[in-house]
Amino acid sequence: MSASDKVWTAGLVVIGDEILSGRTHDKNIAQVASWLQVQGIRLAEVRVVPDVEERIGEAVNALRLQNDYLFTTGGIGPTHDDITVDAVAKALGVGVVVHPEARAMLERYYASRNMELTEARLRMARVPEGAELIPNRMSGAPGIKLGNLFLMAGVPHITAGMLDALTGTLEGGAPLLSETIGCWTAESEVADILRQIEHAHEDCQIGSYPFFRDGRVGANFVIRSTNADRLRMCIDALCEALGENGLEFIPGGI
Amino acid sequence: MSASDKVWTAGLVVIGDEILSGRTHDKNIAQVASWLQVQGIRLAEVRVVPDVEERIGEAVNALRLQNDYLFTTGGIGPTHDDITVDAVAKALGVGVVVHPEARAMLERYYASRNMELTEARLRMARVPEGAELIPNRMSGAPGIKLGNLFLMAGVPHITAGMLDALTGTLEGGAPLLSETIGCWTAESEVADILRQIEHAHEDCQIGSYPFFRDGRVGANFVIRSTNADRLRMCIDALCEALGENGLEFIPGGI
Repeated sequence: MSASDKVWTAGLVVIGDEILSGRTHDKNIAQVASWLQVQGIRLAEVRVVPDVEERIGEAVNALRLQNDYLFTTGGIGPTHDDITVDAVAKALGVGVVVHPEARAMLERYYASRNMELTEARLRMARVPEGAELIPNRMSGAPGIKLGNLFLMAGVPHITAGMLDALTGTLEGGAPLLSETIGCWTAESEVADILRQIEHAHEDCQIGSYPFFRDGRVGANFVIRSTNADRLRMCIDALCEALGENGLEFIPGGI
Repeated sequence: MSASDKVWTAGLVVIGDEILSGRTHDKNIAQVASWLQVQGIRLAEVRVVPDVEERIGEAVNALRLQNDYLFTTGGIGPTHDDITVDAVAKALGVGVVVHPEARAMLERYYASRNMELTEARLRMARVPEGAELIPNRMSGAPGIKLGNLFLMAGVPHITAGMLDALTGTLEGGAPLLSETIGCWTAESEVADILRQIEHAHEDCQIGSYPFFRDGRVGANFVIRSTNADRLRMCIDALCEALGENGLEFIPGGI
């Protein structure tokens, strides 16, 4: 494998009792996944863990050792249930310090609003030793970058702002390209075709995702490859095979 | 701890490249989490893994050993990317067999639609040796129950049907009760109050979830406990403390 063929991968740890209780519907998995695709990095695994220090630490250590990058969302706010910084520092065996720049940002932020920088708010300036900051245009509190580890907010639009600040700063490989073909057919009807076409086209994966719409069954076939030419050939072969079986494909899917 | 105090936990493995690519927004984590709450079972961890046999097997084995129950969603359909049954059977060290009842169900289902029970469709009757079926009223293919392990569909409304069929059949503990109190305040403003009140009320957890609405900041405080009386006392104490600080609480949150 040449250097340019390297597949870059990331793990994501979603931290929060509110996700595991079903109270909050997570939006960060899809958001981080889509963003990573554009950076040429593949999301390899996600773990959702509760607000418990050891559980956060275990997940962070497992996924950072298996991947090039590790992202977390949640638990970096000012309240007692925000324990991500402490959990990650402990997992890495480093101390927790107040980052001078983060402290200055919070001071400016609260001063401009005639509010006091309380002990609780100062919690948001605490970082694992050696960390840098990820800018956050939405609120005063920054995200945290420590080597290939990125600790981000849990509130989706703040997470989005932090991803935005990181765009283009991470090394990645060729982005995974994908195209979707829809078809009014039961996926079981074309299972053999899908398997054969995938098998015949190196470096291409075909995913099949059934749906029900207006009382009819259908399926979307998602063809993925990092190679644009192979992707094209695989799509053409699939469309031809569907046609030979009397089925019409729907460009872009449904 | 008496037997009735036992906390029952479950793990969930969400299987599918489509979630990790960001193409599909997962709906099953919240759905399974909410359903488990009602059964008196706590969702302890979720892992999202790709359509890769070893990765599915690792996650299933890790979470089933740490929890009373293990659920999976995704990968039990008729196409080549549906490999959950094989991955789980391998992880458990058992064979894969065609379940006669599942086969009969599929035969009836397709016969009633004048469709053939092809080899691909018959894949949906394959189960790890020793498994029972979870009825599926939505489509022909059943879910799979093997001891405390439950393999369910990935399409959310089919998953819902399978959860429905399992309702009341699993042993659980006291359900986790929760109540939400909203407040127009920055959570950093009340961080000390939250920590003190939680500390003073045994068996109660308070989660703090900030929001931005109509240009104002606010937060929802979710108080959780398995004990209704303690939950009540904790909520009353929190509301009183907010009042003493000149803040009005919003019953039920925002």
